Amino acid sequence: MARKSELIAVGTELLLGEIVNTDGAYIASRLKDVGVEVYHQTVVGDNPERLASALREAAGRSDVIVTTGGLGPTYDDLTKEVIARVFGKKLVRDEASLAHIREFFRKRGREMTPNNEKQADLPEGAVIFKNLWGTAPGCAFESGKNTVIMLPGPPAECEPMTDTYVIPYLTRPEDGVLTSRFIRVWDVGESAVEARLHDLMIESVNPTLAPYAKYGSVQLRVAAKAPTREEGYALCGPLVEKILGIFGDNAYEENGDGLPGFVFSLLKKRGMTLSAAESCTGGLISKMMTDLPGVSEVFMGGVCTYSNQAKSALLGIDPALIREKGAVSEEVAREMAERVRLRFSTDLGIGVTGIAGPGGGTPEKPVGLVYIALSDGKRTEVKKCEFGTLRRSRERIRADAANTALDMTRRRLLG
Amino acid sequence: MARKSELIAVGTELLLGEIVNTDGAYIASRLKDVGVEVYHQTVVGDNPERLASALREAAGRSDVIVTTGGLGPTYDDLTKEVIARVFGKKLVRDEASLAHIREFFRKRGREMTPNNEKQADLPEGAVIFKNLWGTAPGCAFESGKNTVIMLPGPPAECEPMTDTYVIPYLTRPEDGVLTSRFIRVWDVGESAVEARLHDLMIESVNPTLAPYAKYGSVQLRVAAKAPTREEGYALCGPLVEKILGIFGDNAYEENGDGLPGFVFSLLKKRGMTLSAAESCTGGLISKMMTDLPGVSEVFMGGVCTYSNQAKSALLGIDPALIREKGAVSEEVAREMAERVRLRFSTDLGIGVTGIAGPGGGTPEKPVGLVYIALSDGKRTEVKKCEFGTLRRSRERIRADAANTALDMTRRRLLG
Repeated sequence: MARKSELIAVGTELLLGEIVNTDGAYIASRLKDVGVEVYHQTVVGDNPERLASALREAAGRSDVIVTTGGLGPTYDDLTKEVIARVFGKKLVRDEASLAHIREFFRKRGREMTPNNEKQADLPEGAVIFKNLWGTAPGCAFESGKNTVIMLPGPPAECEPMTDTYVIPYLTRPEDGVLTSRFIRVWDVGESAVEARLHDLMIESVNPTLAPYAKYGSVQLRVAAKAPTREEGYALCGPLVEKILGIFGDNAYEENGDGLPGFVFSLLKKRGMTLSAAESCTGGLISKMMTDLPGVSEVFMGGVCTYSNQAKSALLGIDPALIREKGAVSEEVAREMAERVRLRFSTDLGIGVTGIAGPGGGTPEKPVGLVYIALSDGKRTEVKKCEFGTLRRSRERIRADAANTALDMTRRRLLG
Repeated sequence: MARKSELIAVGTELLLGEIVNTDGAYIASRLKDVGVEVYHQTVVGDNPERLASALREAAGRSDVIVTTGGLGPTYDDLTKEVIARVFGKKLVRDEASLAHIREFFRKRGREMTPNNEKQADLPEGAVIFKNLWGTAPGCAFESGKNTVIMLPGPPAECEPMTDTYVIPYLTRPEDGVLTSRFIRVWDVGESAVEARLHDLMIESVNPTLAPYAKYGSVQLRVAAKAPTREEGYALCGPLVEKILGIFGDNAYEENGDGLPGFVFSLLKKRGMTLSAAESCTGGLISKMMTDLPGVSEVFMGGVCTYSNQAKSALLGIDPALIREKGAVSEEVAREMAERVRLRFSTDLGIGVTGIAGPGGGTPEKPVGLVYIALSDGKRTEVKKCEFGTLRRSRERIRADAANTALDMTRRRLLG
């Protein structure tokens, strides 16, 4: 039977919204793969009484409790002390952890203040998770029916520690694993997607099917439980194929790296290269592509020509054209795509120019107007988009423009 | 007295970690400004029983309950139905909301499927929050000691609706407002910062002082409660000045847009311009700068020269230099900074080249090795950084490199 789990994030900065609880999402997404289901996620401040009460409640209703945060050196880092009290454990100093913390400071040439030593105090008998990414170690222990796991809060530490220690610690071969496959659908609204898939969603049990609305697209998750990841993957196959058939050109199966990852894999398969000239997206497309390791094989780079002068100096666009048609125009987008392609000697070139706002809009060229061009040297298509009709934020308009440019690239590579 | 509030995020996709609960952080950060304190944040799945139980618990212990998500058209969107049941309200169809939803579909040329109509069903007597950013309206109603507020889940809708409707709805002049000012400290560890500020933190009541560790830096929050924002701002002044005095060159007060925003304001003040040539950061610096509206005044653009060929073709760097010293070298970083500055005719130029990983490292040039150069035409400084010593992720190495480049720019502009 699946174990029930509960995530408790500790930190007043989370409760007050000064930082976002990304740890919760990360851990939850990993736990479900090893048959541990998250039923509750709670955020509590650095308050010993409220933390103790959340822990007692969790101990009663869940099998596995994972806390994040509150393991650091400062006086409001209280998680270990409260957990030790609630579960009747003694905290003992772990010399190996202490040595690791000392080494951390020595390597960085920083003085280790005495308050750092308490990071090495851990519940007696716990399995210690060495923190290779920071100072505070994590740990796990069993107490009656509960498995209690503590992880440090910073995502750069919490995430790799989840993968390296927590998943192996919790894996039980007899539980099977949940394997997910994702399909992305563009240019079809969420409710229309659901209307078309309604019956499939109701009747699908293993694999299950669920839709999620994402920026400008809908993501479908097909998930199957099976003894191994390979069997689960295969079990999802027929449903994935069926859905791809329903949405045709508007849908594709994601490889985990989203649209940029899909474009990357298509470029690789075709042996083709890409570059981008960006104005209103200001480097976002380049950033999204270069988020992917190994992308230098196919993505040669880009220019962020944020000023008119840069459009001429870097790409050689005629200043008279910019004066005549305006920097935000079909003609300039076209030139950007064609010229960046030549500059970087790539097979495909993207050009994006628009008004991301909130300022700079006019009645003729409102905020959200973006021209997106794609050129392969023979043919250049330009798409005129109006992303501002819904009072969208600057961030959202830029994301929509970048995603649309990559989706145009995807369609060109496929057809 | 401050009202206690509780945020309940509804959605199996949140519970399973498929999306991150950014709404919780956003709402919490806004509520505290109007004297509403968040004591609990909970995530529940699309499960009517567990949602009802979370609502009943919240109604008992909190004054204000804010739910996010579950207002959409699909059959697992249950928030309104469950809230209506728990608080004994009837759902009635709101014709104005229905007209707005119809108009939304008409404008986008999409067919409105019948399941969308239920988005216009709202609790009788509720104040309706028109959704100018999407379809599902939000609302608020009073029930005994509780104020119950429902908002749609997508952040692009939830965030502006919080600002436009929720904050005015909850504002009570007699509660006063909390005003925060933020100081960023670079190159000093979290524990060393706290050791130096420990006494100040303990003794500061209004304003309060709290530290938060962020990527490669520490953020300090100084927050004061006062009748108006202006008075709160002034009340924070002496403590802010004191802290800036303690950390000198390593600290500065943030204007809300982080390090890029601070660099932007310094450039504007000095009447200077900036451009960036990026290799391993792949457009991230351009993206961070152009996240800021109006930045085109000072940031002229950048090049993402991800391939060696692009470094030569776009910037004119001698291929022989790249062959001899390697693309990741002090010499190439220097050339990138100096040449991008000339290409974009800016006062300052940034050059970044390094190995973001996870592949591509060698014993001599390991993952995380990054050279960062800054040139003003007279002087070019190059900083050699090793961001990989802590097994950092590609994402983290890129973020560290971009932040370091901007921090070097900040220091140059200041001194």
